Amino acid sequence: MKLRFTKMQGAGNDFVVIDATQAPVHLSHTQIQQVANRYFGVGCDQLLMVENTDTPGVDFRYRIFNADGSEVEQCGNGARCFVRFVVDKGLTDKREIRVETASGIITLTLQEDGQVTVNMGAPRFVPAQIPFDVGTQATVYELPLHGETVTISAVSMGNPHAVMLVENVHTAEVATLGPQIESHPRFPQRVNAGFMQVLNVHEINLRVYERGSGETLACGTGACAAAVSGIQLGSLQSPVKVHTRGGILTIQWQGGDHPVMMTGPAEIVFEGEIEI
Amino acid sequence: MKLRFTKMQGAGNDFVVIDATQAPVHLSHTQIQQVANRYFGVGCDQLLMVENTDTPGVDFRYRIFNADGSEVEQCGNGARCFVRFVVDKGLTDKREIRVETASGIITLTLQEDGQVTVNMGAPRFVPAQIPFDVGTQATVYELPLHGETVTISAVSMGNPHAVMLVENVHTAEVATLGPQIESHPRFPQRVNAGFMQVLNVHEINLRVYERGSGETLACGTGACAAAVSGIQLGSLQSPVKVHTRGGILTIQWQGGDHPVMMTGPAEIVFEGEIEI
Repeated sequence: MKLRFTKMQGAGNDFVVIDATQAPVHLSHTQIQQVANRYFGVGCDQLLMVENTDTPGVDFRYRIFNADGSEVEQCGNGARCFVRFVVDKGLTDKREIRVETASGIITLTLQEDGQVTVNMGAPRFVPAQIPFDVGTQATVYELPLHGETVTISAVSMGNPHAVMLVENVHTAEVATLGPQIESHPRFPQRVNAGFMQVLNVHEINLRVYERGSGETLACGTGACAAAVSGIQLGSLQSPVKVHTRGGILTIQWQGGDHPVMMTGPAEIVFEGEIEI
Repeated sequence: MKLRFTKMQGAGNDFVVIDATQAPVHLSHTQIQQVANRYFGVGCDQLLMVENTDTPGVDFRYRIFNADGSEVEQCGNGARCFVRFVVDKGLTDKREIRVETASGIITLTLQEDGQVTVNMGAPRFVPAQIPFDVGTQATVYELPLHGETVTISAVSMGNPHAVMLVENVHTAEVATLGPQIESHPRFPQRVNAGFMQVLNVHEINLRVYERGSGETLACGTGACAAAVSGIQLGSLQSPVKVHTRGGILTIQWQGGDHPVMMTGPAEIVFEGEIEI
């Protein structure tokens, strides 16, 4: 069949977005794998399927699939692309959009400058909830690696993060330290390793070694984890502008159980049609 | 401007193909880089621009650009995609097409099964022409590496190749040996390192560690070099079917100064339009 699609990107994560609001679209795992392949298909990190919903008070439903065809619950960068898509394609004239996802109903806001704000939920610092195998909760922890000990903060943004302060993010030993932190025995479900350089109280540079993926262009939850850790440490104040290799994200957090709000770009890259 | 394009692939190399036969298309280095970027553009190994020509007896002209915007002379996988493009788009009804490239006029043939045959020129075994710094020309050479010595053939297909026989291409130590061979001091312009497993006299498995790129999905000149080396050694007979990670290429060579003919697939993956 001929599949029309829109290729989008949001701070370094890229998406093939399918409009299934006019007619249902069913893709098999194999078809999603084909579309996601960067040589033999369109190429993307994830596929985003936009659908209608009968749920009262909800505007749309969307589903996100990894490149291997498996369905995932949430993705901050994908949520931003979803909002830009439904607005740019004229599927809604709202700017605050309620959408049903596999992980519940979320509210997304398109800002006047075209950026999109996503509620990323509250951070969790309790070690057992991260999970992080350590005696008592603290602001920072010493983590022994091969030959050196590093100081980290640990926080969950739905997924586990260890954040380390560095003097210069460009010369930080991400390729050496990243895998050691990621698979440290004290993190039983492994951990995303963030390397944060504080530029001023409202601005950081960030690189993230992602669990199972290595260093990536952008990691939305990693940006949240770094900003929140810096605010906890007293080195940062909300809002925090996070410079990643894929783009700039702005993180707002009022502390405690308040949710972390992430604002960032989402753009249509090109339109296409593929035979699958 | 809005740029219409066709995304194609040929045995693991992928191309953004632009039809500039109807109206001229001028792209800057920056625009090519944008189009070639896999996150912020369409994504491709190379961009192929199909143009008209005034040269008598020649059907088309094409130009090939690397992802960094620089123009390159030739590419076997790109030539195949060019032929499929002009035929599939109805720009010609010929099956044997003469085309002007940056490296001269070449003749390309579309086979009945949709595969395309490209004349890749004659192989060169003279060490100085590879270039390979060795006393006398031989069929095989001993090459000392860190801790072990490997046996290679050396041949130029316009670019230098070292080909090594292995028992099993899937378990061959491409990641360890590849970089050592590639940058061996006896190859003053470095070398592409091929790892060839002979299945029978007409069939091999091949992996190539490409000069400056590491292991790639496909290397057209690497497939030619491996087949030609095997024929020289007496282990193979023309035609040779070469299984690469990106697809199957068939190599024909009558020996001596005869040209190497490479036949392989070329396919349209999708159609698109991008604002650049």
